[in-house]
Amino acid sequence: MGPGPSDVPARVLEALSRPTIGHLDPIFLRVLDESQAMLRQVFGTENALTLPMSATGSAGMETCFANLLEAGDQALICRHGVFGGRMAEVARRCGAEVTIVDAPWGQAIDPDELAKAAKKRPFKVVAIVHAETSTGVLQDLGPFRAIADSCGALLLVDAVTSLAGVPVDVDRMGIDAVYSATQKCISCPPGLSPVSFSERALRVLLTRKTPVQSWYFDLNLIGQYFGGERVYHHTAPVNMIFALHEALRLVLEEGLEARYTRHRAQANSLRQGLESLGLELPVAESSRLPPLTLVRIPEGVDDRAVRTKLLEDHGLEIGGGLGDFKGKAWRIGLMGASATSRHVELCLGALEEALR
Amino acid sequence: MGPGPSDVPARVLEALSRPTIGHLDPIFLRVLDESQAMLRQVFGTENALTLPMSATGSAGMETCFANLLEAGDQALICRHGVFGGRMAEVARRCGAEVTIVDAPWGQAIDPDELAKAAKKRPFKVVAIVHAETSTGVLQDLGPFRAIADSCGALLLVDAVTSLAGVPVDVDRMGIDAVYSATQKCISCPPGLSPVSFSERALRVLLTRKTPVQSWYFDLNLIGQYFGGERVYHHTAPVNMIFALHEALRLVLEEGLEARYTRHRAQANSLRQGLESLGLELPVAESSRLPPLTLVRIPEGVDDRAVRTKLLEDHGLEIGGGLGDFKGKAWRIGLMGASATSRHVELCLGALEEALR
Repeated sequence: MGPGPSDVPARVLEALSRPTIGHLDPIFLRVLDESQAMLRQVFGTENALTLPMSATGSAGMETCFANLLEAGDQALICRHGVFGGRMAEVARRCGAEVTIVDAPWGQAIDPDELAKAAKKRPFKVVAIVHAETSTGVLQDLGPFRAIADSCGALLLVDAVTSLAGVPVDVDRMGIDAVYSATQKCISCPPGLSPVSFSERALRVLLTRKTPVQSWYFDLNLIGQYFGGERVYHHTAPVNMIFALHEALRLVLEEGLEARYTRHRAQANSLRQGLESLGLELPVAESSRLPPLTLVRIPEGVDDRAVRTKLLEDHGLEIGGGLGDFKGKAWRIGLMGASATSRHVELCLGALEEALR
Repeated sequence: MGPGPSDVPARVLEALSRPTIGHLDPIFLRVLDESQAMLRQVFGTENALTLPMSATGSAGMETCFANLLEAGDQALICRHGVFGGRMAEVARRCGAEVTIVDAPWGQAIDPDELAKAAKKRPFKVVAIVHAETSTGVLQDLGPFRAIADSCGALLLVDAVTSLAGVPVDVDRMGIDAVYSATQKCISCPPGLSPVSFSERALRVLLTRKTPVQSWYFDLNLIGQYFGGERVYHHTAPVNMIFALHEALRLVLEEGLEARYTRHRAQANSLRQGLESLGLELPVAESSRLPPLTLVRIPEGVDDRAVRTKLLEDHGLEIGGGLGDFKGKAWRIGLMGASATSRHVELCLGALEEALR
């Protein structure tokens, strides 16, 4: 119950351990095609270029920036936690000039502030974290397409902790590039990063003046393996794809709406319980992210001692704070298969005992 | 029995499907430490910076080049197959100026040619593929340290298809940076890339003038998670590490020498059988790579029809040719758990039938 990985269902672990077969085996290619189709459903997109990158979530971030940015490009990046800061760092390493709009950690980005910054010059990319895993803040994406349009930019979104737990709605929100991870609300082990590019993002990619600086993350090349031509790029992580395929089947068997409702309901129940224990939730109610709850560590309580006790006495992991919240807050995840009343009860009971 | 992935033993698949736990869980961190220690044994090195990158083998290649090269650096790269060509491409994308020494596909690089090229200017990196997966050529690494020294370069080696099947001997050979993959002679599913950096390579990394262009592959950052400080970089692919740990245990239980002997013996037996079938082996005997055998497709035989027949009638995959050998040769792998007499017999029997 930390900020991920979440619990992985037995069916997914079984799929993970199927005999390894070749990355060009027709059986594997069918699994790959079906996984892409299911990813499109979960992302809410018809983007052809929708696929799992063969590395963890942060590689998805690098994939989006490295494919869209060239040296000297302008990027406008929202930073209200670790992952917005990481976006800025990755964009700079791609040679881009980065303009940052900040919000205090634990708060959402103010769209008016962003709109103001977007007026200053044209940008190639506007980037925002949908669900800040470092703070438990959910950003309303509503105004962002219009802001990106106002400065001629592509809209790039981090959906690592939102995908399959909170609606992402890529097409409806007008998102051009989005990445996620498997070990959060999809409840598959860590190791893959689903990404999706709109037609508009694809055009930017196809009309670059310079090659993508990363060969491994170059979607021009990777797209030729996924696109049906099956041109060899790298050996796909076959077993991880088996697991993702089964995890996505579970997501769709439950249904996206039912899954979002479950995440909201369990998060509400956890929060009520935490407040009953006298604990404080630093994030305003309107910005709270169902899959991840930030809890202030009460004065005088030893962060590490409590977390060690939870792990040793209850086999329960919760996350420590990052950045501004290091040593000051815990992060409790209710993601995918871990968003159940059993988890909520375990966590509340264990915390009550540890804080006694 | 293609060029990888090889068969994965049941014990490894079982380890792969253990319940997913957190990447900071003490149990996981012990598995990680032990995996690093075992990787050092298999690489034949005492390098502290020895770890599995969280992506497939080609990511290991990019990790080595991106961490060592900066814009304008000189790289001397040997190319005698797909993967030497890929090295050149990756190095160029890091901004390096690349000098290439070629050998015909199916032959080893001539060390004298390389020594001649090394005389022309100082280089930062000399790079060579130890086991060319596209041609089945094993390169004798003996003379390379001296050549790298002659031009002041680090020695960078691709050991993707050699590690755990053929001696690599990183320290004895004076290799500064080396990468491999899990799905070849280690017989773990694809998804991780073991790398190792010498003290000398580490000093080059630490004294760079510019940041590593890839954030995801930046060993300065990754080293802080593996090095004991456990600073969060990305979520480690927990289950894949469980599998690697078990696969490395199997390698060391067998013993490296015994494993190398088994690979040689089974390769010899396969080759005798292929020649008995009247098939031709394009690689000279002295350069043949035990884990991968190149076989010329006889005149008039339909490449794809034979491979489809093997797969459908015998559940047997062999690899097609790449580059100069596309449509002209097959690649038969005997890697790790797939290097057994059962595999050799299956392959020879199936080929005999398919070619009849």
